[in-house]
Amino acid sequence: MAERRLRILLVGASGTLGRAVEAELAQRHEVISAGRQSGALRIDLTDPAGIRRGLAEAGPLDAVISTAGKVTFAPLADFGAAPFGESLHTLGIQDKLLGQVNLALAARDHLRDGGSITLTTGILAEQPIVQGSSASLVNGAIEAFARAAAIELPRGLRINVVSPNVLTEAMDAYAPYFRGFEPVSAARAALAFSRSVEGAQTGQIYRVF
Amino acid sequence: MAERRLRILLVGASGTLGRAVEAELAQRHEVISAGRQSGALRIDLTDPAGIRRGLAEAGPLDAVISTAGKVTFAPLADFGAAPFGESLHTLGIQDKLLGQVNLALAARDHLRDGGSITLTTGILAEQPIVQGSSASLVNGAIEAFARAAAIELPRGLRINVVSPNVLTEAMDAYAPYFRGFEPVSAARAALAFSRSVEGAQTGQIYRVF
Repeated sequence: MAERRLRILLVGASGTLGRAVEAELAQRHEVISAGRQSGALRIDLTDPAGIRRGLAEAGPLDAVISTAGKVTFAPLADFGAAPFGESLHTLGIQDKLLGQVNLALAARDHLRDGGSITLTTGILAEQPIVQGSSASLVNGAIEAFARAAAIELPRGLRINVVSPNVLTEAMDAYAPYFRGFEPVSAARAALAFSRSVEGAQTGQIYRVF
Repeated sequence: MAERRLRILLVGASGTLGRAVEAELAQRHEVISAGRQSGALRIDLTDPAGIRRGLAEAGPLDAVISTAGKVTFAPLADFGAAPFGESLHTLGIQDKLLGQVNLALAARDHLRDGGSITLTTGILAEQPIVQGSSASLVNGAIEAFARAAAIELPRGLRINVVSPNVLTEAMDAYAPYFRGFEPVSAARAALAFSRSVEGAQTGQIYRVF
């Protein structure tokens, strides 16, 4: 069957995972790359107005993907009871969590009927590592949000999450924190984004581990 | 065997679930009730300094329980991309999520060796309802955080989560949102808090549904 060429906005395109997602999807579709400091469009997930502006510049879309999001890795002992803004959880909540949630919420106004939103979490949502409590918190929040948002999105819009294991390409930096975890290549993780965008499911967590 | 009498701080003691937890545990243990506007101690989860003060007033503890936490229920269509502080997610993140996380973090300094922390989420972490996306987000975050914190707590300290279904006692108000869900009594949900406090597991999500 003839495939329709989709217009896909990819936020986080310059990262290890983003580059692999672009390589996978650009074979068949138009991928508009976006990022904080590079890409065809500049989008900083921590800036809701900037997200809306970037989406408007992108024009009508069939898919919005995020492979972006920062979070603090630190020993639990370093986390103290602190108000929002002074907590070690603030970065992850403002950037990876609310950044991706805001992207999903804003994307509703720019996606064609049946279009998809795909966010990124990671194995720490389910399998913790030492120093990863904030990443776990953020990933768990995103996955539960996506499951819930899926049942309320209008016009057949869909939302899924890709949760990869630690990436092979990141093991130089992360190996000591992920001993015993089986790394997956960014190219393999990218297939899950293809399933989300080119498939028809919603409310799914695609685990690549 | 002779049971040791534990000193338990219960935040959210005046709520439907809190009263049931107190009724269950006060049969065998000393339960110090705490809440925003009632209880032996006044603790507002959104005030980290107040949490620390309340814990200090409570003295040495064997368990800290939270059955407290507010979150916004609203249609997904009402949630827009917004900065922290202006988002409909702000209440849930500041109150039920970071409030309970901060209570857990502060509790480390006041719990005896082997003591436990028990937080409360709910079935929406896994099974969404319409208007529940923020509750899902918050509950998913708390559960993933607890799984991760469990592997880093010092001195044999433990942390678990109780995730109840909608409470029978709340069905007067919530029934239209939870059609088809099987309500559980607060007394039945309270048993899971007993398992957490009087058992020896850590990093568990006790589902009461």
